[in-house]
Amino acid sequence: MLSVTEFFADVSREVDGTLDTIIPKADVEPTRLHEAIRWSVFAGGKRIRPAILMATGRTFGVPSEQLANTSAAVEMIHTYSLIHDDLPSMDDDELRRGKATCHKQFGEATAILAGDVLQTLAFKAIADDETLTAEIRLILISLLAEAAGTPAGMVSGQQLDLDAEGRELSIGEIETIHGQKTGALISAAALSGAIIGNAANNELGAIESYSTSLGLLFQITDDLLDVTQATETLGKTAGKDAVAEKATYPGHYGVEETKAMASTVRDEACDALSHVEKDTTLLIELADFVLSRTR
Amino acid sequence: MLSVTEFFADVSREVDGTLDTIIPKADVEPTRLHEAIRWSVFAGGKRIRPAILMATGRTFGVPSEQLANTSAAVEMIHTYSLIHDDLPSMDDDELRRGKATCHKQFGEATAILAGDVLQTLAFKAIADDETLTAEIRLILISLLAEAAGTPAGMVSGQQLDLDAEGRELSIGEIETIHGQKTGALISAAALSGAIIGNAANNELGAIESYSTSLGLLFQITDDLLDVTQATETLGKTAGKDAVAEKATYPGHYGVEETKAMASTVRDEACDALSHVEKDTTLLIELADFVLSRTR
Repeated sequence: MLSVTEFFADVSREVDGTLDTIIPKADVEPTRLHEAIRWSVFAGGKRIRPAILMATGRTFGVPSEQLANTSAAVEMIHTYSLIHDDLPSMDDDELRRGKATCHKQFGEATAILAGDVLQTLAFKAIADDETLTAEIRLILISLLAEAAGTPAGMVSGQQLDLDAEGRELSIGEIETIHGQKTGALISAAALSGAIIGNAANNELGAIESYSTSLGLLFQITDDLLDVTQATETLGKTAGKDAVAEKATYPGHYGVEETKAMASTVRDEACDALSHVEKDTTLLIELADFVLSRTR
Repeated sequence: MLSVTEFFADVSREVDGTLDTIIPKADVEPTRLHEAIRWSVFAGGKRIRPAILMATGRTFGVPSEQLANTSAAVEMIHTYSLIHDDLPSMDDDELRRGKATCHKQFGEATAILAGDVLQTLAFKAIADDETLTAEIRLILISLLAEAAGTPAGMVSGQQLDLDAEGRELSIGEIETIHGQKTGALISAAALSGAIIGNAANNELGAIESYSTSLGLLFQITDDLLDVTQATETLGKTAGKDAVAEKATYPGHYGVEETKAMASTVRDEACDALSHVEKDTTLLIELADFVLSRTR
């Protein structure tokens, strides 16, 4: 069994290779657009979503080549959302993964287009993936679109987040926002790996529970990092959530209680795996990695 | 045979019905997002792209229900591009189809999200269309993504257009920009109808030629309308192209020569149809409609 560090190195190498093939080279016209896309896609992202997809896929015995395009697609959807989220009219962020955000580097108009076309490329990557049956490709496209869309996906979560700024939220509202904005895509990544691996229905249910807890864990640790880490370590502007009066777990429960909650949610994720009749070590290690991450 | 006016009324009724089913209702949370989407989608658009798709589909004998989702998808891609194109950092337009643009009405952040999620809904609508075989759905998704994307689709055309503002363009450059920004999606609409209708390869080639000319005709008449029509008739701010120093046909050739060119391009579109072994009256009427349109 690979260590989780080696696994992440594998994932990054594989997904970067696929993304480099899918995204037009920076010298292809219009060069400014392709430079902008590559600026954000190859900005040193953690590749958490491809890792979750590949970990689930490996758990169900899927060969890497059948996971490549879908992993890249999920990462492209994620990157498009970051580019648009950072825009002046949204979170107005200047720093992302330790580099200037896309609009700071290339201007707002190009950043909007770069995000737009990353979404297009994501769906095309799955539609064109000849390692998968037509039926599986359509299930994956529909699943990813639901997770990225509305009324219970990434974009609706971003809208709820916008609508909520400046007012106090209940913990239920916080969970709804996070579940849509971050959790839906993480669950879609996990389910995609299992679907490609022809998982049985009860196993899909287990993976869905696991990934829902993992998504929640990811958001809780994200909120904790925003409070506890310096901008330098984080690679993005720290303390932004408090300034923007965003709804966060530490804001609601305090740091210590939030840390205890993270540990409980990690256990819930791993407990859900008991229904999967495979070696789930990698998925457990992934949950531990998310629990203890420092960026 | 229906008159072209009756045909357009049919198309609008059908596509509006499909769009109303696909897009979450305005009272579904987040309501602001769904109101914004509906504001732009039901703003009285001409439904030219669905009309082209349905006209080609009917020509090849396809029943309406097999054309519904793909027509709606093409219109959603088109509407997303209008919403983003109107943003302050892009064309900065306040009026569209006689109404406030999406960002004027709902703010920039919501307008960005409304455009984003229309793209998502478009691909999902095709993936979920059970009236079509899995193989056809994948071909349509890939075709639409190529037309909407980069390096030779709608978004790359918009980037080229942005890059070109303020400098004089060759006619070759103008044609490249228009071909990508407007023509690619129109061709994809026409080809989609033919693909759903199982057109033979030589017929697909003929429809591609027809639609390339039709797309060019559409752009030429669009440029002419911008010069010759008042804002009130046009439903969007007239004379914007000249103010923005955009590359246009009348700007390059003058109005009279551009009108003659439009007539020639209409004939080229119709000549291409001689290779189609079907009744092509509707497609010819559509070209005549685009030639003589007043908005």
